[in-house]
Amino acid sequence: MAIPSESKVDVLIIGAGPAGLMMATALAKCGVHARIVDKRGTKVFNGQADGLQCRTLEIFDSLGFGHRAWDESNHLLEICLWNPNDKGVIRRSDRIPDTIPGISRFQEVVLHQGRIERFFLDTLEDCSDVRVERGVMPSSLEVDESLVEDADAYPVKVHLRHLTEEEATPKQTATSANGTSVQDGLFRSNLAKDDTEELIQKARLNEKANTEEIVHAKYLLGADGAHSWTRKQIGVHLQGDSTDYIWGVLDIVPITDFPDIRMRCAIHSASCGSIMVIPRENKLVRLYIQLTTTEKLSEEGGRADRSKINPQVILEAAQRIFAPYKIGYRKLDWWTAYQIGQRVGTCFSKSERVFLAGDAVHTHSPKAGQGMNVSMQDTFNLAWKVASVVKGHADRSILKTYEAERKKIAQDLIAFDRKFSRLFSGRPAKDVMDAEGISMEEFKDAFQKGNLFASGTAVDYEDSLIVAKPKDEGAVDSSDESGGKRRVVSDQSLAPGIPVGQRMPSVKVLNQSDARPWHFQERLPSTGRWRVVVLPGDITQPAQAAKLAEVGQAFDGESSFLHRFTPPGRPKDDVFEVLAMHHAPRHSVTIFDFPQVFRNFSDTDGWDYSKIFADDQSYHEGHGKFYETFGVSPRGCIVILRPDQHVSYVGPLDDPGAVTDFFSGFMKAQVA
Amino acid sequence: MAIPSESKVDVLIIGAGPAGLMMATALAKCGVHARIVDKRGTKVFNGQADGLQCRTLEIFDSLGFGHRAWDESNHLLEICLWNPNDKGVIRRSDRIPDTIPGISRFQEVVLHQGRIERFFLDTLEDCSDVRVERGVMPSSLEVDESLVEDADAYPVKVHLRHLTEEEATPKQTATSANGTSVQDGLFRSNLAKDDTEELIQKARLNEKANTEEIVHAKYLLGADGAHSWTRKQIGVHLQGDSTDYIWGVLDIVPITDFPDIRMRCAIHSASCGSIMVIPRENKLVRLYIQLTTTEKLSEEGGRADRSKINPQVILEAAQRIFAPYKIGYRKLDWWTAYQIGQRVGTCFSKSERVFLAGDAVHTHSPKAGQGMNVSMQDTFNLAWKVASVVKGHADRSILKTYEAERKKIAQDLIAFDRKFSRLFSGRPAKDVMDAEGISMEEFKDAFQKGNLFASGTAVDYEDSLIVAKPKDEGAVDSSDESGGKRRVVSDQSLAPGIPVGQRMPSVKVLNQSDARPWHFQERLPSTGRWRVVVLPGDITQPAQAAKLAEVGQAFDGESSFLHRFTPPGRPKDDVFEVLAMHHAPRHSVTIFDFPQVFRNFSDTDGWDYSKIFADDQSYHEGHGKFYETFGVSPRGCIVILRPDQHVSYVGPLDDPGAVTDFFSGFMKAQVA
Repeated sequence: MAIPSESKVDVLIIGAGPAGLMMATALAKCGVHARIVDKRGTKVFNGQADGLQCRTLEIFDSLGFGHRAWDESNHLLEICLWNPNDKGVIRRSDRIPDTIPGISRFQEVVLHQGRIERFFLDTLEDCSDVRVERGVMPSSLEVDESLVEDADAYPVKVHLRHLTEEEATPKQTATSANGTSVQDGLFRSNLAKDDTEELIQKARLNEKANTEEIVHAKYLLGADGAHSWTRKQIGVHLQGDSTDYIWGVLDIVPITDFPDIRMRCAIHSASCGSIMVIPRENKLVRLYIQLTTTEKLSEEGGRADRSKINPQVILEAAQRIFAPYKIGYRKLDWWTAYQIGQRVGTCFSKSERVFLAGDAVHTHSPKAGQGMNVSMQDTFNLAWKVASVVKGHADRSILKTYEAERKKIAQDLIAFDRKFSRLFSGRPAKDVMDAEGISMEEFKDAFQKGNLFASGTAVDYEDSLIVAKPKDEGAVDSSDESGGKRRVVSDQSLAPGIPVGQRMPSVKVLNQSDARPWHFQERLPSTGRWRVVVLPGDITQPAQAAKLAEVGQAFDGESSFLHRFTPPGRPKDDVFEVLAMHHAPRHSVTIFDFPQVFRNFSDTDGWDYSKIFADDQSYHEGHGKFYETFGVSPRGCIVILRPDQHVSYVGPLDDPGAVTDFFSGFMKAQVA
Repeated sequence: MAIPSESKVDVLIIGAGPAGLMMATALAKCGVHARIVDKRGTKVFNGQADGLQCRTLEIFDSLGFGHRAWDESNHLLEICLWNPNDKGVIRRSDRIPDTIPGISRFQEVVLHQGRIERFFLDTLEDCSDVRVERGVMPSSLEVDESLVEDADAYPVKVHLRHLTEEEATPKQTATSANGTSVQDGLFRSNLAKDDTEELIQKARLNEKANTEEIVHAKYLLGADGAHSWTRKQIGVHLQGDSTDYIWGVLDIVPITDFPDIRMRCAIHSASCGSIMVIPRENKLVRLYIQLTTTEKLSEEGGRADRSKINPQVILEAAQRIFAPYKIGYRKLDWWTAYQIGQRVGTCFSKSERVFLAGDAVHTHSPKAGQGMNVSMQDTFNLAWKVASVVKGHADRSILKTYEAERKKIAQDLIAFDRKFSRLFSGRPAKDVMDAEGISMEEFKDAFQKGNLFASGTAVDYEDSLIVAKPKDEGAVDSSDESGGKRRVVSDQSLAPGIPVGQRMPSVKVLNQSDARPWHFQERLPSTGRWRVVVLPGDITQPAQAAKLAEVGQAFDGESSFLHRFTPPGRPKDDVFEVLAMHHAPRHSVTIFDFPQVFRNFSDTDGWDYSKIFADDQSYHEGHGKFYETFGVSPRGCIVILRPDQHVSYVGPLDDPGAVTDFFSGFMKAQVA
């Protein structure tokens, strides 16, 4: 074998599942080039379908492909709860909305994981030259601890081995540790047409088969799944355990007289177990079925005897739960069986140079439709931070917030999953005296509360360098590099509906220049930019206009964040985008009533018409009522949004200096 | 030269502009294969931008690419009217919505014609093997009149000549009879990436250069523009004339302090002429400018001396009109100048075997943003009719409705254009005594009324074989092939908001099976299918449920249209799709409360869950109030929709036989 070639890269990503692809895509949108490798030679076309929660769709939209997921997926609108009546026969006892109305402009949908990976691959192709390198496996990993705090160093050294095609091809009949696949079910796919480019890529990679190379990376992400190689290299362990519940999964095109088969249903039978119905695209329905009979078979040991589980066993269990309704199928797309395991990693990083994300640091049951969502949200949280540091905009100190923010989410998720699984798997109580049974009222209540958690819109990051929580919520002093600067705290009372720590909520607003309605979130694409949103209230009132003018002057000053932290020679909105959202009638003002910082001028392109918005009635899409909905004070306020749309700060309009103070905590002064 | 090859094709299309591409695409969606040829060797990348009216976007959406046009285009929300004040200085006198609120789920947008052609080409590629054959020119056309009434014959004989690349390449500096292009303005385009396939295609075609072939077609479409070769072959003339108004067009990225530059504006200056501002994508703005100075230059002859017109002359004219606001540019994308010509063809067809569409039969000024819209709507009207006849579903008699329906539209368009051009081009009246000046009130009034016309949603086809207007509107007896059948007439009072002759309007409705909200129009894709929409009212009322059951029985009967006119062996919804839209609370019924004709059963796929809808509140998208909005009688009704979404018939729920009677007028009985 020849001497391995050596190369450098800013970020190396191990694993091209949803978490790894999100990292590569979000980095590319920030202008950072990563390499992304996967040991498998092709994308796996298995039956994995996952709910896409509304926050995930918001993130997809911020990356430019929300509409593709929205258009192709099956939408889940309603959850029907079925329970035994007093004769023990199942009947619909309740209907609840699947997504709580009003929390997002999207609702939960279901789509094959292969399509989601396709959207990432297409986006990477459109916005970068990053391509997934398949059939590439890491074989060693070293981190030079002496270099980890040197921002310009490449302390991560990885050996990569290029596999032969045979090594890289997964066996078609065993797609996961838990699952066994239907022989011809996995490769029936609507992906065929899209994969030409990949085949070419594959041929190219094969030329390198059996060679090795050494990569020196500034940062490494291990997004290599539940059996994570990266995790083992850095000595991180998963903590937690399996439960006794055993579930079968069938993906079928059902033939049934059950009237709610196109709804998401939770069915508790009187004594035959529970089933979750998840309608999918192309008339498919996924059934999660509790296998009580198999559970008995496995009483001797901790693990079930999987050889006794097959589609017929699962279907018969389903038929007992669905009775008196009939259910059968002619088309079986995929099936599997699993025991619920809930585990979380002891830590998420080594020296903030090697990071873990997704299944590599947390595993749980799939019924809540959370896995892929939380995994992608892990790396969506991480990518902009790594990008800011790699580009020299921010200090490395912000990287510690990744574990602080995401480990809590993983723990919450597992707590939620434990509670939900218990309530879902348990036998319904016959009456209030049946202490061993599950109260269906309690189940419904947990389901509804769980929906807010599961939507992803309630994620609330703690106080940190990059989240200036209000004081009464327990703001702490933090070390401050810029010396002598005050520690900024938010005044949440100025906009109670824009909670510091959570993602920016959205309503429709109007572009001042052309009256076009936009969901405010649509104006927050994920490009790595921070946003400073100035809410000046009604600027036809002289006091508000005066404060707005002062904000303009402060932001334009030599000592402002815009000048200090934007690299010289770069566009004015390269690091920070300054937006205005006013509350005067749209007709009463023009963009020329706003300071120039809100409408940058270009010699060739004229004024920027894209950054001033009005909270007013639209002609065709109603009135978003931004100020009213979010309780924005008539005195106005200033909001800082992170590149991932989470709210960093809410403060008074007449303290524009706080914005500079906030950024001084972790941004690096740029010099010409 | 070798002996020309001979071949047969159902439909041959001459010209691959928007009208020809719409024909090919709409035919392909109906399953009919056409050939489409264009003498030019490449798509022309010129500055043509056109408004896309909301009906056009509805049609695009029915073909599957409405969202692409919507996402990429610039949206026009508001029209600002600027006029001289009493000191002769322009000021904004009025704002009106560009699209009348409520008439459509889309609004007017502006997008480069090249992108629109791209959407057609992509759609053709996705749904057929039809590809535009470029560099191919017809050289002779014969129609065998003895065969025109034989549905199976190929009476149209065309010689096609395959050009050399040199012959097929248009000169880059002269893109139209009227226009002169900026040398480097035309080939800057966002199309580059998409054109690989076309280049391959072109290379393939070049192998055939200088060969001839003979095509025998059942039908031929001439969509070959204002200088239509096809029109000349069949001896059709355009009638009408030019006006004296001379206009310049500039596509620029403006640098200006004019506050409404991102709005559509109509500016009348006191004495320097008028200007229309059309903001476009990518910060471009199109200015239509009246050239008063040049008009004087041309006083001797009928045509202006175009050598005296250049971008500088046009810009200076614009600057005089915009004063006291400043306007200039660094980026000029395209420019042209034209005199308005308004002409319409004497007839639209020869023997209903050769048809003309688009600019080939009507020309008018571009300012109303109508040209491309009406052209595409011509062939959208024609395609499903030709497809029905070619497939043997319908009698040739329906083809006469093409001219009857579309010639009137062309004439209305020209009348509208005349009036609008006069009001727009004229000098504003100084006061009410100024009889030669144009009243700005009259202009605003005409603009608002014109907007409904221009939207395309008010198109109202006359009574015919395929439009059963109500009697009081002057229904006439027509010949009836099926003999003895009554002539069906509509009862508009059963649903005044679903006007017979117009396109089906739309509100949100809910799928009964999964509670998903859809705009009703989204359930009417253009596939060549007729729709029979049964509106049974509140079926929790026994009387309505009984009538619904009778409709089910009638439609299922041996003598019903479904059985008589659907080819044996084809899917049950191959020719007619039967939909239900009920008014009971969604929760109170299931699909099993509907006759089987609304939920066809498949042995492999189970029930059809896609055809029963509820008029009820959604969780996230409001309540469409279908019955209330369209005034649907509580007694219910039956609506027949043409494949182009126009309403054919509205009649009583308890007369399901009328549906069969209606279709008996022109559909062909199918035998096993």
